[in-house]
Amino acid sequence: MKKAAITLFLLPILSFAQADADSIFIKKMSDDILRNGKAHDLLRQLTKQVGGRLAGSPQFARAVGWGKFTMEMVAPDKVFLQQCMVPHWVRGGADLATIVEMDKKPFPKKLDVLALGNSIGKGTVQAPLLAVADFAELEKRKDSAVGKIVYFNKGFDPTNIKPFISYGQVGIYRRNGPSLAAKYGAVGVMIRSLTESVSNDPHTGAMAYNDSFPRIPAVALGPRDADEIWNLSRKSSLVVSMTTNGKFLPDTIGHNVVGELTGTDFPGEFIIIGGHLDSWDVNEGAHDDGAGVVQTIEVMRVLKAMGYKPKHSIRFVLFANEENGLRGGTKYALEAEAKKEKHIFALESDAGGFTPRGFTVGGLNPAQLTKMQSWVKLLTPYGVTEISNGGGGADIGPLNRLFSTPVCELEPDPQRYFDYHHARTDVFENVNKRELLLGAINMAALIYLIDKYGL
Amino acid sequence: MKKAAITLFLLPILSFAQADADSIFIKKMSDDILRNGKAHDLLRQLTKQVGGRLAGSPQFARAVGWGKFTMEMVAPDKVFLQQCMVPHWVRGGADLATIVEMDKKPFPKKLDVLALGNSIGKGTVQAPLLAVADFAELEKRKDSAVGKIVYFNKGFDPTNIKPFISYGQVGIYRRNGPSLAAKYGAVGVMIRSLTESVSNDPHTGAMAYNDSFPRIPAVALGPRDADEIWNLSRKSSLVVSMTTNGKFLPDTIGHNVVGELTGTDFPGEFIIIGGHLDSWDVNEGAHDDGAGVVQTIEVMRVLKAMGYKPKHSIRFVLFANEENGLRGGTKYALEAEAKKEKHIFALESDAGGFTPRGFTVGGLNPAQLTKMQSWVKLLTPYGVTEISNGGGGADIGPLNRLFSTPVCELEPDPQRYFDYHHARTDVFENVNKRELLLGAINMAALIYLIDKYGL
Repeated sequence: MKKAAITLFLLPILSFAQADADSIFIKKMSDDILRNGKAHDLLRQLTKQVGGRLAGSPQFARAVGWGKFTMEMVAPDKVFLQQCMVPHWVRGGADLATIVEMDKKPFPKKLDVLALGNSIGKGTVQAPLLAVADFAELEKRKDSAVGKIVYFNKGFDPTNIKPFISYGQVGIYRRNGPSLAAKYGAVGVMIRSLTESVSNDPHTGAMAYNDSFPRIPAVALGPRDADEIWNLSRKSSLVVSMTTNGKFLPDTIGHNVVGELTGTDFPGEFIIIGGHLDSWDVNEGAHDDGAGVVQTIEVMRVLKAMGYKPKHSIRFVLFANEENGLRGGTKYALEAEAKKEKHIFALESDAGGFTPRGFTVGGLNPAQLTKMQSWVKLLTPYGVTEISNGGGGADIGPLNRLFSTPVCELEPDPQRYFDYHHARTDVFENVNKRELLLGAINMAALIYLIDKYGL
Repeated sequence: MKKAAITLFLLPILSFAQADADSIFIKKMSDDILRNGKAHDLLRQLTKQVGGRLAGSPQFARAVGWGKFTMEMVAPDKVFLQQCMVPHWVRGGADLATIVEMDKKPFPKKLDVLALGNSIGKGTVQAPLLAVADFAELEKRKDSAVGKIVYFNKGFDPTNIKPFISYGQVGIYRRNGPSLAAKYGAVGVMIRSLTESVSNDPHTGAMAYNDSFPRIPAVALGPRDADEIWNLSRKSSLVVSMTTNGKFLPDTIGHNVVGELTGTDFPGEFIIIGGHLDSWDVNEGAHDDGAGVVQTIEVMRVLKAMGYKPKHSIRFVLFANEENGLRGGTKYALEAEAKKEKHIFALESDAGGFTPRGFTVGGLNPAQLTKMQSWVKLLTPYGVTEISNGGGGADIGPLNRLFSTPVCELEPDPQRYFDYHHARTDVFENVNKRELLLGAINMAALIYLIDKYGL
């Protein structure tokens, strides 16, 4: 009884002291990142010296070299590569499209398009246009789809406050639209780019063919061109042409780049933090996901700079091939399974280098979620006001599926993300240094808390 | 007792129903703003057709015409102008500066500079440079300031999470630096631009002379040029030249533009919402404060579109001359005093068109602050997670000083603000449509709640 009484008496004091020690340590990391952070300079290197780096490309191989070298400069306990086979899709040339005729008269008008990733080009395809609002309208008009180029007008619902909700709602048009149109005899597909941007830049991204139907070419239209096609098609018949050259070369070798700070108490228990090293070919992959890559390295840097010795092993993973195959994330999980490594937590940053607002987390029981949410007050000074139920990033999904590892993703402010996502505008200049560093601060703080207190 | 018991029983139910009605109404406004909002198009007009609009300039007069016309199109109960005299500072030509000599040898190097607003040009001034870290170092080296151009290197502290804290800490170098150097015989002043931007664009802004000392010219250096001057000056003696042509023309006529929705129950009690119509001359004044102007008009538009009949009169005010005189805000308050108008609340948006995060509020007693904070849960779906003690915008300061009117300011995410603030880069293209509209949604919601529940 006496002992219990003392414990009860001491508990709040210890807990205050702990919270204080944590906030002091987090502030030290924050100050160091804001004064000495390398993330922005590293992002300049990755975007300007390596550039766009689709899996399988020479640029991706260069990015692997850059990632390994850069991690080695930070000098964690280990740096190693994980080899995996990756798809090797190439765009094969410039993507073009034009309106050719309106109401059977010549009406030449160039359209700004990008072929969808993984789509197979057929050179130039010219055909009458069937413009539909959505899958439901295509279903109604399926008999008139034969021999046509089908255009899907479905766009984001602007009333969703979080644009990722919109992306979730209409992403299926990009992924499955081509095969759904091919099913009814269409010879090509155009979609409205998945964005609410006021500019006309088209947005590419992965699609996947259903092997039951012909592999027809598919492009995303710039949003202003999409408006025009849609408006013209309401009153007139259009003939359009599209030229694409996408193809798959044989699968080739890719790599995850992994750095490790080995744990002092539980070296065989792993905490993962990462982003994906690959990007689309049409831009510099600055927000998607150069930001996550350099934030991951920044967290490694600051933990080293603090002289922090983690209890668990922390792995810093730059994943291969998130965009069009997820082979890197899958490889990481399979390797972990083969080596019977215990993975207690995985964090990814793959929603852009914007000012941080929260974390989403999946695979936790209610007590674990409550525990994580009790840390929010430590993060609020740095912008994170919420830890909510949701998913982790795509690359750490396989870890969750194989081992039920809790997975988490940094949730930056999402309003600008789809201005740049998979478009030519995803370049270094559109990433703000302070916003990028603040993301890294919150990631470092969360990893520290997970390592210290577990879940 | 019986009545009290019933009240106690009903209270939570009523309060739930009320909260529900409020959240439904706010969602309706949000949907309408995100679907039909005009703020972004209006900002394009104001920035591209009117442009930079310093008080006293022909562009400012054009902005007044635009504001009145635009408000009349929304058709509130009243639209009127409030005339006031405004200062008329002109830049007078291109601002130039160069390093002329290093260690007594020619070392010609152009520097990117902007004269500080309100500074008086002297054509070209050439002199040896005295570079100091801060006022304390100038104080120590004051005897060597005679005949020199003094450079103040003081910049933002990057470890402040909120850059407005940094601005508060070092703004005095821009406002008072010139006269403090003139006191010790300096012939010109250069300051480090008040920004953490990674680009070299210089940032102007208002300074004020102390009439006890000579009026020496003053410029802000681009941040990269500031780095170079500072680094060179640590090892070498420099001679620099600066060319500025700023001057004051006689005070001229300016106007506040005011729209009003007249209250049904308390027409003589006013709620104010506003932004400032003037901007610096070197940019388009897109974030500062075109955003606040178009958000103000957007709130008027949506309340009209909802058919909302306010209980109190709501005034939508586009203030003249925030940047270099505050004559518009002062005029508004004096006019209110003369007409014995009761002002119960004033809200300004003057921190940029970025994604909203909170409101700061001043002049409330603790019960009023608690009441406002109870509304946060209604705003959180739209991004506002905090209502905290702080100031209102500059233009509504005179209302607070004269009448103790509670004053409030929208607090958008602040990380990018000082990349654009008073620099050439404050242009339409750097404002995101959704971020801008989300600010207007939260402003509309707050004004609705103030009107409905009072303080």
